[in-house]
Amino acid sequence: MIIVLKPDITEKQIQHIEERIKKLGLKPILSRGVERSLIGVIGEEDKLRATPLEAIEGVEKVMAVLKPYKLASRDFKRESSVVSIKDVQVGGKSIVVMAGPCSVESAELLSEVGHLIKKAGAKILRGGAFKPRTSPYSFQGLGEEGLKYLKKVGSKEGLPVVTEVMDPRQIALVDKYADAFQIGARNMQNFDLLKEVGKTKKPVVLKRGMSATIKDLLMSAEYILSEGNMNVILCERGIRTFEDATRNTLDLSAVAVIKQLSHLPVIVDPSHATGKWDLVAPMSMAAIAAGCDGLMIEVHTNPEEALSDGSQSLKPEKFEELMNMTKKVAEAVGRLM
Amino acid sequence: MIIVLKPDITEKQIQHIEERIKKLGLKPILSRGVERSLIGVIGEEDKLRATPLEAIEGVEKVMAVLKPYKLASRDFKRESSVVSIKDVQVGGKSIVVMAGPCSVESAELLSEVGHLIKKAGAKILRGGAFKPRTSPYSFQGLGEEGLKYLKKVGSKEGLPVVTEVMDPRQIALVDKYADAFQIGARNMQNFDLLKEVGKTKKPVVLKRGMSATIKDLLMSAEYILSEGNMNVILCERGIRTFEDATRNTLDLSAVAVIKQLSHLPVIVDPSHATGKWDLVAPMSMAAIAAGCDGLMIEVHTNPEEALSDGSQSLKPEKFEELMNMTKKVAEAVGRLM
Amino acid sequence: MIIVLKPDITEKQIQHIEERIKKLGLKPILSRGVERSLIGVIGEEDKLRATPLEAIEGVEKVMAVLKPYKLASRDFKRESSVVSIKDVQVGGKSIVVMAGPCSVESAELLSEVGHLIKKAGAKILRGGAFKPRTSPYSFQGLGEEGLKYLKKVGSKEGLPVVTEVMDPRQIALVDKYADAFQIGARNMQNFDLLKEVGKTKKPVVLKRGMSATIKDLLMSAEYILSEGNMNVILCERGIRTFEDATRNTLDLSAVAVIKQLSHLPVIVDPSHATGKWDLVAPMSMAAIAAGCDGLMIEVHTNPEEALSDGSQSLKPEKFEELMNMTKKVAEAVGRLM
Amino acid sequence: MIIVLKPDITEKQIQHIEERIKKLGLKPILSRGVERSLIGVIGEEDKLRATPLEAIEGVEKVMAVLKPYKLASRDFKRESSVVSIKDVQVGGKSIVVMAGPCSVESAELLSEVGHLIKKAGAKILRGGAFKPRTSPYSFQGLGEEGLKYLKKVGSKEGLPVVTEVMDPRQIALVDKYADAFQIGARNMQNFDLLKEVGKTKKPVVLKRGMSATIKDLLMSAEYILSEGNMNVILCERGIRTFEDATRNTLDLSAVAVIKQLSHLPVIVDPSHATGKWDLVAPMSMAAIAAGCDGLMIEVHTNPEEALSDGSQSLKPEKFEELMNMTKKVAEAVGRLM
Repeated sequence: MIIVLKPDITEKQIQHIEERIKKLGLKPILSRGVERSLIGVIGEEDKLRATPLEAIEGVEKVMAVLKPYKLASRDFKRESSVVSIKDVQVGGKSIVVMAGPCSVESAELLSEVGHLIKKAGAKILRGGAFKPRTSPYSFQGLGEEGLKYLKKVGSKEGLPVVTEVMDPRQIALVDKYADAFQIGARNMQNFDLLKEVGKTKKPVVLKRGMSATIKDLLMSAEYILSEGNMNVILCERGIRTFEDATRNTLDLSAVAVIKQLSHLPVIVDPSHATGKWDLVAPMSMAAIAAGCDGLMIEVHTNPEEALSDGSQSLKPEKFEELMNMTKKVAEAVGRLM
Repeated sequence: MIIVLKPDITEKQIQHIEERIKKLGLKPILSRGVERSLIGVIGEEDKLRATPLEAIEGVEKVMAVLKPYKLASRDFKRESSVVSIKDVQVGGKSIVVMAGPCSVESAELLSEVGHLIKKAGAKILRGGAFKPRTSPYSFQGLGEEGLKYLKKVGSKEGLPVVTEVMDPRQIALVDKYADAFQIGARNMQNFDLLKEVGKTKKPVVLKRGMSATIKDLLMSAEYILSEGNMNVILCERGIRTFEDATRNTLDLSAVAVIKQLSHLPVIVDPSHATGKWDLVAPMSMAAIAAGCDGLMIEVHTNPEEALSDGSQSLKPEKFEELMNMTKKVAEAVGRLM
Repeated sequence: MIIVLKPDITEKQIQHIEERIKKLGLKPILSRGVERSLIGVIGEEDKLRATPLEAIEGVEKVMAVLKPYKLASRDFKRESSVVSIKDVQVGGKSIVVMAGPCSVESAELLSEVGHLIKKAGAKILRGGAFKPRTSPYSFQGLGEEGLKYLKKVGSKEGLPVVTEVMDPRQIALVDKYADAFQIGARNMQNFDLLKEVGKTKKPVVLKRGMSATIKDLLMSAEYILSEGNMNVILCERGIRTFEDATRNTLDLSAVAVIKQLSHLPVIVDPSHATGKWDLVAPMSMAAIAAGCDGLMIEVHTNPEEALSDGSQSLKPEKFEELMNMTKKVAEAVGRLM
Repeated sequence: MIIVLKPDITEKQIQHIEERIKKLGLKPILSRGVERSLIGVIGEEDKLRATPLEAIEGVEKVMAVLKPYKLASRDFKRESSVVSIKDVQVGGKSIVVMAGPCSVESAELLSEVGHLIKKAGAKILRGGAFKPRTSPYSFQGLGEEGLKYLKKVGSKEGLPVVTEVMDPRQIALVDKYADAFQIGARNMQNFDLLKEVGKTKKPVVLKRGMSATIKDLLMSAEYILSEGNMNVILCERGIRTFEDATRNTLDLSAVAVIKQLSHLPVIVDPSHATGKWDLVAPMSMAAIAAGCDGLMIEVHTNPEEALSDGSQSLKPEKFEELMNMTKKVAEAVGRLM
């Protein structure tokens, strides 16, 4: 931690800051400069992080030297982590595609979609039983009924199942049916929910919040990891910007940045990021080229009657095309599909 | 709802869209233009809102005519709502100041701060017992113990108490001690939590999410209102932008815009918005001049030892100054304090 | 400048960095830590600023201790600057209102508006003769004819005149007619233009770009100041964010922040920031409460026939109301109008 | 154009709006609804665009049906445009790589870099002679001397040359030496500059502004096109968002969106977008997978001594690797390199 002092700081104020630091068991090192003086702090930066140094008179700004996350960091674990959802490994050489309808609407739909995505090469079935909808008047999901359909179709097709959990009270129920939890973008900083999924050992797909920095995302992962659950998969799904041609702005640099900062696997959801089905294929290919470990894609047999997010869902034949196209890109960057 | 058709749409596709609309019990009106044709839809727009029209081939874009929220809208209720937190009215002629420490850290601190803010003219005591912290390693709040201190100090000083609830499982507990619930920015779209506070009759201070539009905020309010709880107070607390001189960017236009769109009271939290204690006073005055109904301000007797958000907390004497300054601005705009 | 080193940096790489620093005539101070080592640099930080230290192997990040602007900084000049546009002082105790139509459309319009705003208390006449329009098919301004009308009406009413200059080739011409130059938001980083107005001695109203940080704005001011023209007035006019209820998001915290960082006067343009005439009055009052030194407001006798920005223009009677309302707020915060 | 009326609009106000529309030679069609009435306008939408309908009392909002750009639109020209910079075609089957140092620093550097990028497969030489720098104290470019070096190295290596023009007064000079003009992000809405390059016939690489929407970018292209110069190449180079892990946020969806909306070629600049040399290769591959027609990449033989943007520059050997990697991705998506 580096503390930059104001030009007009008094000696007494400097002493006060030094004492504060020593009281925490850390060592302050004062360095006087012509325009600004600094105090460098030696010892565990974390102890200082909780201290509002900027509230002390005479302090101009405080600059952190270290990253605030530990277990999520590549400094903590050099080699990339592989997270297994049942027998499917995410983070290895193969790029894993998770696909399915936005929401589980009926047994028939799910069964049909499940069969078709499996045939096309998807490895995991996704579908929402509990749906976070902006409007209270929109379809809110089938709940346990939807979970049952997911488990049934997953078993039949041999596809592990991932589904969203929105409320700590749903965890036990979802745990019975799903092979991995999904934490949605709107709940990325629902810390109680993070802690609770952290207490299970089940893999968690953690989606980046719309206004979350990469650092925020890694801090939210840290909540899960620090509870003992190391099976975290990060998911880039677009951030909120001024551009309104797409629903959100897919931040593919984040994939490459996370790969540098963290050992955790990263997947990309181009369906929610763009909100438009005809952008899903190009963005899927771009995501793979950027280095992601998997994709999460919405597929619906009849998008125009979908109860949620129809405009971003692919028809099964388009999904099959996408699988063929992405396979070539995966090979070009030395990955398998 | 207006559906803009692509220039190369076929007659068959137009018919298909018209049939879809009729099937929903609505009436399509085709209007052919030189460059683009349109279909206007007469009837309840809500039915269409759930239908992914953009997924239909030949559709270029869909434009909503009506607002997606109802109960939160000024179209629904012309006169401004006044929400009572015990005997304190928010949304009337008086500007209500809610103040207190970011988190309840000890009985002593709270007692002292409670006394001083009361003396300075605050009408409601705020303080967090459950804290949403970015890092799992930061102080997470005292929980029920903190709630007890809040109730005790509130009773002693005659100040109603507002405190954050982060998890549906905390509602019953918080309900025993607090006079109003606060939903934090990170939980603005925690829809299960919104529904649950909607089922109580207790006032709810709903903070705007960092990446929430004004429309999103009103939709989240709608979740609470539609469960039957009409006691919602909206709170502007800054949005996330590229500017990093302040923690967030306080959007004071939002106050004036919400006043046009909705009948609900609006307060402003300049402490979290700016993240800097020396910006709290100017932004408080600006908020009142912009038309808000109240302020939420962090006060701490010793900010540099605060367990959370010390750098944005005011010392009691600075708070007293602020109260004097804001009072003059309130009078200048025809309000009381 | 603090250079944070990667955990796996080699001794040879450290030496290389130290040599680079010494070659610039600066002194490196190595500080070894448990998790990270640092190199602090003593001497003129500017010399290092131009050096891409992040391009050197082994460097994790570089943190600047000093601000990159000099002449615009309060470190350079403690007391607030007052800029005179003819006999009108901006930055003193009085809040100065600049008003007029978005563009000069005709001699009649300008004459009428000029007379009415003067009567209502405005101190400076504004109006565009050269207009930066998003579309090449929109009205581009009257050019020199418009400048002539401005000068004429300004003389008649005794109002100094400010008008936008978009191109270095227009400066000599505009200089003949106007009392102050305006640099628009889209040209805030048109560095050649900044240098050229810097070479004149005439006051410059420099508008913040839509995606400019406060630091960027001060750096652009530095371009003008460093050419010898100290008569710079900064103007906050909204930044681009995801919120679409207003044209831009007015950042009033910026007013208070700039007052801390810089000695230059700051005015606010609520017309362009909000894009809506009915938000201009509340945002004008809020801007004054936040501490600004002036306002720039669009007034048109018949907004619905305005050739540009009609929807944000006030009718003269509304402007008069605004002047009365803002006067009270100005007095409440110890200013005059 | 659809005009949504306020619920409390009077018959007289409706008549007034209808008359305004008729006066412009257009036909209003009133459609009364239960909650809102609308007026649809038939005829040339452009005439209305200039009219501030939102300034008329009783109007709630105005929704445009058509796009505001014409010549840049795919509605205007179905087939994709190919722009030739001398003998190099941009927008065809081959992906074109433009490379070179950020600024032309010396004849030696440019000669060396020019030779190495040519060998690695680049088709166009880039380099700045006039540099838009945030700070007035930074290196501002060599001016005409730099242009001479560019021409010389370009001729020697058989590489066409592209370089930035910042000021209309530089156009004639740059025109003598360069094969294509570049308009930088900060000048994307420097409309006088756009008009002037529009009057030449030389290709223009138009970079997207940091806060420009895709629509804004196409409108700026329209300025150039409407002057008669159809040789416009668009360049995505990152937008400003809250994420600070990268310098800007590269918006690769924009590539796919522009391909739908416009016939113009699109290239991507991953160097400026990310600001970090180690993100350039993954983002280059992702850009190609997303469908771009070319790349613009910074290469420097000694990045740590570069006079500008060293931290984002690739060393020649890294650039060669990048060329090999991107070639495979190009082939995977059916393109050549």
